[in-house]
Amino acid sequence: MRATLMYKAGDVRVENVPDSVIKHPTDALVRITASCICGSDLHPYHSMDADAGPARMGHELIGIIEAVGADVSTLRKGDLVVSPFAISDNTCEFCRENLQTSCSHHEAAFWDGIPDEGAQAEAIRVPLADGTLVKLPVAPDSALIPSLLTLSDVLGTGYHAAVKGGVKAGDRVTVIGDGAVGLMAVLSAKRLGAEQIILMGRHPARTDLGLEFGATDVVSERGDEGIAKVRELTGGHGSHVVLEAVGHMPAYQQAIGIIRPGGTISRVGVPQYQDAPVGFPSLFGPNINLAGGPAPVRAYIEELMPDILNGVIEPGKVFDTITALENAPAGYQDMDDRTSLKVLLTP
Amino acid sequence: MRATLMYKAGDVRVENVPDSVIKHPTDALVRITASCICGSDLHPYHSMDADAGPARMGHELIGIIEAVGADVSTLRKGDLVVSPFAISDNTCEFCRENLQTSCSHHEAAFWDGIPDEGAQAEAIRVPLADGTLVKLPVAPDSALIPSLLTLSDVLGTGYHAAVKGGVKAGDRVTVIGDGAVGLMAVLSAKRLGAEQIILMGRHPARTDLGLEFGATDVVSERGDEGIAKVRELTGGHGSHVVLEAVGHMPAYQQAIGIIRPGGTISRVGVPQYQDAPVGFPSLFGPNINLAGGPAPVRAYIEELMPDILNGVIEPGKVFDTITALENAPAGYQDMDDRTSLKVLLTP
Repeated sequence: MRATLMYKAGDVRVENVPDSVIKHPTDALVRITASCICGSDLHPYHSMDADAGPARMGHELIGIIEAVGADVSTLRKGDLVVSPFAISDNTCEFCRENLQTSCSHHEAAFWDGIPDEGAQAEAIRVPLADGTLVKLPVAPDSALIPSLLTLSDVLGTGYHAAVKGGVKAGDRVTVIGDGAVGLMAVLSAKRLGAEQIILMGRHPARTDLGLEFGATDVVSERGDEGIAKVRELTGGHGSHVVLEAVGHMPAYQQAIGIIRPGGTISRVGVPQYQDAPVGFPSLFGPNINLAGGPAPVRAYIEELMPDILNGVIEPGKVFDTITALENAPAGYQDMDDRTSLKVLLTP
Repeated sequence: MRATLMYKAGDVRVENVPDSVIKHPTDALVRITASCICGSDLHPYHSMDADAGPARMGHELIGIIEAVGADVSTLRKGDLVVSPFAISDNTCEFCRENLQTSCSHHEAAFWDGIPDEGAQAEAIRVPLADGTLVKLPVAPDSALIPSLLTLSDVLGTGYHAAVKGGVKAGDRVTVIGDGAVGLMAVLSAKRLGAEQIILMGRHPARTDLGLEFGATDVVSERGDEGIAKVRELTGGHGSHVVLEAVGHMPAYQQAIGIIRPGGTISRVGVPQYQDAPVGFPSLFGPNINLAGGPAPVRAYIEELMPDILNGVIEPGKVFDTITALENAPAGYQDMDDRTSLKVLLTP
C-alpha cells in the first residue's frame, strides 16, 4: 500500500510500504478515505534528523472498517469511522476522566508514536478499536467529511484549549496563532461564550476565516508591539484567557505579555522548548495559571459532532487544499510556505 | 520607635527608627501587638546584598488602631485589627474578583515593598486602611491571637494553595514543605475534603503537627526516593494535586515527579528561580496545570476567621516560639536553624 514517509527535515515521500494488517484481537483495519497534514507535522519537517527517519506520518483520519479483530464488539466492516490522534481504551481511570491522552492501557499511544502505522496512507491498523474509533453517521463522500475530519485533531485541540483555559461567557480571550488549531480555538471560544476574541496572526486569508469563526479583533503585530495592541484592546489589563496555538517560545512570551492577572494561559501548540519563565514576574506574581496539553480529542467527539451534523459550525473550512495522497510532499511544502492553511489528502 | 531591619544576609537588628505617622487621609496608624517572622523572610536572610539594606522587615501583624486619616470610614481608634501582607483598596476590579494581590490602586503594595514601614516593629502606617484591615472581635490578649495572626499570611497562603489547586472531596493531595505554610496547606486540604494528604518534610516536630492538622501520610525522603514513595502511596499514578510550599527548584522538580496526569501543581512558596521545566515531558504531555501565586489573603479572612473563633481550627499552633520584638534577630536565626518553626513577636 502507499504511505507517506518523512526521511528528514524537508524530505517527505509517498512510497510503497507493507500492507497494514490486524495483529491483535482488539485491532481494526481501516481503509482511509480522508486524511490530512497537521501543523505539528511541520515541526519535524523543520528539524528532523536523517537518523530518526524514515518515519510514517499522519495522525488524522476518516476511513471505512475493512476488518475487525475477534474482540472488537462495537464496530463492523463497512462502518465509516473517525480516529482521534491518540489511541485509548476509553475505559481506564484516565479515560473515564476524559483524559484519553493519558490512557493507562499498554497499547495506548499517539499515532505519531507508532512506528509502522500512519494516517497519511491508504490503510491503517487501529489498536484498541472499540475505545479509539467513533462511527460517523454519514456516507464517505458526504460534504461534511472535511468538518468531521477536524474531530480527529484540530477541532478537539482548539476546543481543549478553550476548555482548559476556562473560557466562559463574557471573557476577553486572545488566540495566538492563525493556523488551523488557532482558528478552531477562536470557534471554540465563541462556542463557550467569550465576549471578545482577539486573534493574533498575520496571514489575511487565515485571519479572515478567524473573523468568520467569531474573532472580534485581529492583531497582526508581534512581540512588544503586539502585546501593546492587545493590552490596548483589552482596556489595559490584558486578556482573561490566552489560547496559545503555536508552540514556539516567542508565542509563550507573547502570552505572558498579554495575560490579565489571575488569568489562564492554555497551551495546545506542542512546545518546542523545555524550560520557560514561570517565576515571580512572569506567572507567579500575577497568579497566572498555565494549563493545556495534548488534547484528549476522543472526549470531545460526541459533544462536537452534532454541531457539525446540524451545520452550526463548519470547521472543515480550514481545509483550503484537497488533493490526492500522492501529493503529500507538495502539501507539506505548501503548508510550510503558508500557501496552504491545511491540506486534506484523499488516498 | 523600635523596628526590625535587615542589613544584609544573616544580619538582622532591632533599632530605633522614626515613628510611623499618618501621611494620607486613607491611612491608619496601628500600634502593633503581635507580629511574626515568615518563612519568606528567610530568603533575603540567605541572600540579601548589603547594598539592598537596611530593609524594614515583617508583613504579618495584629494591632490596635491609634489614629485614622480623615477618609477612613470603617475603623476607629481602639479597634483591634489584622493586616494581610498586601495592601489593597478592596474595591477595584481585581479586588472584587478576590485577587487583592493585584489591586490596581496606585498605593497598593506588599508590605515588603514599602521601604519605610514593616510589621516587625512597634507601630505601622497602613495605607488604604478601609480596604486592607479587618477588625477582630476579640481582646488584644485573647488566647486566639496566634491563630488570628495566621490570617495575615500563612493560613490564607496555605488555603490559597489548596483553592487554586482545586482540592475537592476525595482527592489525593501532596504538600511539599513542612514549614508553617505547608502545614497550613495540610489543614486547608483537609478543610476542602481531601481524602489523602501526604506531607513531604523531614522535621518530626513539624510533620507531627502536620498529622495533627490532617495529614494522612508523611514522606521524609527527598528527590527520586521521595517521588517513588509518593507514587507508591498514591497507587502508582501520583497525586491529583500538589501544593508546593517551598519555592526552591528541587521542590518544583519534586512536584513534577509526583503529580498525576491531568493534575494541578499549586505553588505558594515564592519561587527562587525564573525558568523551570514546562515542556512536553514535564507539564505539557500529561496535561498538568500550574497554578498559584502570592495569596490574596484578604479574600479569605472572613471565610476562615469563624473557624478560628469557633475553635474548629487552631492554626496558631505553628507558633512554637513567642518572644519580645527585641529578640527578632535570634528569631531569624532559630527559624533558619529549624529550631523554631515560626516565631511570634510581641512589641
